Amino acid sequence: MLYLVGLGLSYETDITVRGLEVVKKCKRVYLEAYTSILMAASKETLEEFYGREVVLADRELVESGSDIILENAQNDDVAFLVVGDVFGATTHTDLVIRARELGIKVEAIHNASVMNAVGACGLQLYQFGQTVSLVFFTENWRPDSFYDKIMENRKIGLHTLVLLDIKVKEQSIENMARGRLIYEPPRYMDIKTAAQQLLEIEEKRGEKCYTPNTPAIAVSRLGAPTQSFKAATLKELAEYDAGEPLHSLIIFGRQVHDLELEYVYEFVDDKEAFKKHVEEDQEFFKPPPYVPPPEDELSD
Amino acid sequence: MLYLVGLGLSYETDITVRGLEVVKKCKRVYLEAYTSILMAASKETLEEFYGREVVLADRELVESGSDIILENAQNDDVAFLVVGDVFGATTHTDLVIRARELGIKVEAIHNASVMNAVGACGLQLYQFGQTVSLVFFTENWRPDSFYDKIMENRKIGLHTLVLLDIKVKEQSIENMARGRLIYEPPRYMDIKTAAQQLLEIEEKRGEKCYTPNTPAIAVSRLGAPTQSFKAATLKELAEYDAGEPLHSLIIFGRQVHDLELEYVYEFVDDKEAFKKHVEEDQEFFKPPPYVPPPEDELSD
Repeated sequence: MLYLVGLGLSYETDITVRGLEVVKKCKRVYLEAYTSILMAASKETLEEFYGREVVLADRELVESGSDIILENAQNDDVAFLVVGDVFGATTHTDLVIRARELGIKVEAIHNASVMNAVGACGLQLYQFGQTVSLVFFTENWRPDSFYDKIMENRKIGLHTLVLLDIKVKEQSIENMARGRLIYEPPRYMDIKTAAQQLLEIEEKRGEKCYTPNTPAIAVSRLGAPTQSFKAATLKELAEYDAGEPLHSLIIFGRQVHDLELEYVYEFVDDKEAFKKHVEEDQEFFKPPPYVPPPEDELSD
Repeated sequence: MLYLVGLGLSYETDITVRGLEVVKKCKRVYLEAYTSILMAASKETLEEFYGREVVLADRELVESGSDIILENAQNDDVAFLVVGDVFGATTHTDLVIRARELGIKVEAIHNASVMNAVGACGLQLYQFGQTVSLVFFTENWRPDSFYDKIMENRKIGLHTLVLLDIKVKEQSIENMARGRLIYEPPRYMDIKTAAQQLLEIEEKRGEKCYTPNTPAIAVSRLGAPTQSFKAATLKELAEYDAGEPLHSLIIFGRQVHDLELEYVYEFVDDKEAFKKHVEEDQEFFKPPPYVPPPEDELSD
């Protein structure tokens, strides 16, 4: 049996009781260590807490060496630990498909992930549109497909959760070219960089998907002991020091309920100024009146 | 301190290790018992597992009697247990706001909820739009605001998670009028009813938000020992017996990746027929070509 076990967001004790029972009984335990990190735990503290060895699974092992992970899992129990919930990344879906092909049973033991825990910021989960990802810009690669998705969400009044890039065990181009297995230190995109990249693309595209005054929430270390939220405009967040990683960002949609605002005020510096920005943002992005599709599009 | 503790989806052991530690040390423990249910556990099995008393908190207690829950929580630790994750319902947000007003510290201990665990169906979470809720239709009340939201999601190619109504501790109109505290047996909307209601509203509105042949996934008992998925058309699901509650439904968006489809094929009766429905659905809902907003809308 292959067990996919979500570890939650931060502490080693964020694993579920059922998940812990599984980890203790499995023959081999892998920890997926490249799409996210556990903020208040390490491989060593996990091993101590579980009372057993944990094998770090990097991207190469999961994507190219999945048969090593799945070896004899038809008979042995194997645990694959994932920070957050288990189906956050496509590579995990791949692993399940491969397991099925090999006739291995799969069970998922779910846990919290940023996708649902972000409700702690006070914005309601059902008011979120699609989640987007923001990668580190380089000199030559500044992809902006997130912009269209945020636009789609904002046009229908919805909030957008923006997940920020994590670079773990990446090689420099030079080291890669020379085949040297030397890795760069891990990098986690911070709020400041995210807000700057967002504003740069707005500047470039100029479609007013959002403005420097669009309200947003900086989510820092969600689920960790030092979790914090800061609600401010994008311009303000472009200069905000959110401290240690991990960070995420939420861009407001027009559709903000009073209950949401009341909750979010806890995280603003200047309530009146923030309220004004929210009101302006709501006005600016008023949806066009609904126009039903023309008749000929409706006929089959 | 007020601890909001997510219980996850099904087993009593779905609580996190940290959550369990908190429950054991708190002076009072409430279980929110009206927005969802734990599928493989009851108040009694929870009490046995925790080794302590648990007070059921119904809607009335949470919404009108929150000061009873929060009594002296400035000094005592109080746990408020929520099935799924803690910020799934607005009433929990209310409770936190009330706690703040009373100067009570609040800590959330997150867990899996249907909002993230639904990734187990093989569709990618970042391909979902806003989540909608479907309530039981009555003779005189057949609200269809979900229809516009599904339309918004489908227009931009996204999947829609449809949460199905749960009626717990409801009074009949007659008993309510006579002030009799007699409650109806709990009711949980099943897939069949959901698909029928969806098709009824499409029939009525006729805007081709979806069709009887639109592909969907019936999600039954997510996270429970008997969890199952069935991928089929809405018309097929309108006659599908999904067994015991709880059920949810996912309506496909046009944007289906091959990896998603490959995963979902595991849950279909007839792969070729399903594939054809997916392809037809993708064709039918092709987005209009992107048109940038006119210049005058862009100026400030």
